[in-house]
Amino acid sequence: MIATELGVSPSTVSRVLNTEGDAALRWGSPDTVARIRAFAREHGYSPNPQASGLRTRKSGLIGVLVPRLQDYVLATIYEGIEEAASEAGLSTFVTNSRDTTENQRARTRMMIDRRVDGMIFGDAHLDHEFLDEVHNQGLKFTLASRRSGDYPAATVDDVRGGRLAGQHLAETGRSDVAVLAGLEFASTAVDRTRGLVEALADHGVHVPGDRIVYSGFDPAGGRAAIEQILATGSVPDAIFATNDFAALGAFGVLRDKGIRVPDDVAVVGYNDTPLAEGGAVPLTTVRSPMHEMGREALRLLLEVLAGKSPESVLLEPELIIRRSSLADV
Amino acid sequence: MIATELGVSPSTVSRVLNTEGDAALRWGSPDTVARIRAFAREHGYSPNPQASGLRTRKSGLIGVLVPRLQDYVLATIYEGIEEAASEAGLSTFVTNSRDTTENQRARTRMMIDRRVDGMIFGDAHLDHEFLDEVHNQGLKFTLASRRSGDYPAATVDDVRGGRLAGQHLAETGRSDVAVLAGLEFASTAVDRTRGLVEALADHGVHVPGDRIVYSGFDPAGGRAAIEQILATGSVPDAIFATNDFAALGAFGVLRDKGIRVPDDVAVVGYNDTPLAEGGAVPLTTVRSPMHEMGREALRLLLEVLAGKSPESVLLEPELIIRRSSLADV
Repeated sequence: MIATELGVSPSTVSRVLNTEGDAALRWGSPDTVARIRAFAREHGYSPNPQASGLRTRKSGLIGVLVPRLQDYVLATIYEGIEEAASEAGLSTFVTNSRDTTENQRARTRMMIDRRVDGMIFGDAHLDHEFLDEVHNQGLKFTLASRRSGDYPAATVDDVRGGRLAGQHLAETGRSDVAVLAGLEFASTAVDRTRGLVEALADHGVHVPGDRIVYSGFDPAGGRAAIEQILATGSVPDAIFATNDFAALGAFGVLRDKGIRVPDDVAVVGYNDTPLAEGGAVPLTTVRSPMHEMGREALRLLLEVLAGKSPESVLLEPELIIRRSSLADV
Repeated sequence: MIATELGVSPSTVSRVLNTEGDAALRWGSPDTVARIRAFAREHGYSPNPQASGLRTRKSGLIGVLVPRLQDYVLATIYEGIEEAASEAGLSTFVTNSRDTTENQRARTRMMIDRRVDGMIFGDAHLDHEFLDEVHNQGLKFTLASRRSGDYPAATVDDVRGGRLAGQHLAETGRSDVAVLAGLEFASTAVDRTRGLVEALADHGVHVPGDRIVYSGFDPAGGRAAIEQILATGSVPDAIFATNDFAALGAFGVLRDKGIRVPDDVAVVGYNDTPLAEGGAVPLTTVRSPMHEMGREALRLLLEVLAGKSPESVLLEPELIIRRSSLADV
């Protein structure tokens, strides 16, 4: 914009604004340099980080990729990343991958083209082919929400979270537990399900394979999964959803079929999003520290950018018991 | 990355990759040019849009600012923007402003520094001081979700949406309507409330000032607003929330106080987010075409970038009647 206003080339403007003192005189006449600086001062322009990026190779920019920002969980993790980045003097930006490798590749390329210093992936797949690819290209990154391979990740201890749910359902007398498991390629789905199944087994409760349905983490995914489970003709006495939104989607289907929560079926969700507490049947859920997870992913990335190899962070889950799993309350 | 690998300066790399044919030989020896091009081909590097941005002044990048991506409505609008931008060969990125002018200013500055071609604001305030400021600095932008001043905006017809809600409540016999109005500086809050009040007045129902409470658009905002209304000691027979999430937050408070929905109080929300349908009491709501709104905001921006002055777009709202407002269903 300055360039147009002053009738000089954009590269002259960026060179002048990125050079201190008289050294800037090699980029233009004293009058041009003075005019560019005065205009920049007057209009509050800062030096162009792109132009200086070409020189210093640090953009101060962190790129974040998530499956969908529609997912409250990922949006909250992003807020944690943004907060910690801002404290460290960095800017962040985020976009959706819709969980396809094709989008992950194209949007990571876009971010590298924008000269990000590093990236945080909130959409890692257990199969880490894509991550290996960008790692081999020299990209610095960490993971949030989902772990994959040995890459530094900030996640909640999802196996433990699943165990907390399983233990609670066993202890409250449930013996036929169905799982709305989420997406099969995500560690969050697999680890939470594994923890649940293990804890139930410890209490002598077996979960048969056809009681575990992988589907989306959202209300539509929850509806589809519970419909598939009910299509077997037998109603489970408990449902564990690896995401609150899937649990709330299942609520609608149960209601339409006249199956009562918690009397006929106990429901336990995951994450403790605000709607877990606020709905007509308050939802028992496993709380995950989403905001903190984002902050930790950024902290790990700062270490990676400093050339270190940080250990992954496993945050502690907490079981929040509400009415949806307590028939006699 | 190429620069490091090949031991040449980043500016040489960007110049070579942005210059076709033999003209690139002014930036390096034939050997250097050949090595840079071969490496870029082999590793799938595209020319650096930053470097070419300095020359052509088009970055192909659109910045988006929203209050909070935690809000499903804004996240969905962003998906519409992203989809339409991608179809037009543009990249987008988004960040949160938390609805403060301070953040709007700092993050817009960050986006301008990243050489966005234009921006879409999903967080406009009715007071358009900040928008005037960036408009005067030459920034090209459009608005989504909220209108402000005469700037090109893609919104739903919120006055009409409020009227649909008011008409429905009057026709189903409600006469004491409270409003969880949202944030007072947002056109969505003010226009939806105005439409409701006008439609009720047409049916002879007056809404006193103390029945209208401005608060957040989220569950916490809805809880705070309904608590303030109930603190007057009289229970309204209907609640209109300008956002589904505020309505769902209010559900929790009503439940805890033993006030039944819809028998004691009808509840109508706004937007028709997926949880409106899926909850234990399905929510009557005014559907807004959120995804389409994002697409339209991007289309308007393309016109602005082409030097045109497009008219704002008002999308059509639709009343979706469910159990929360129908005592006898």
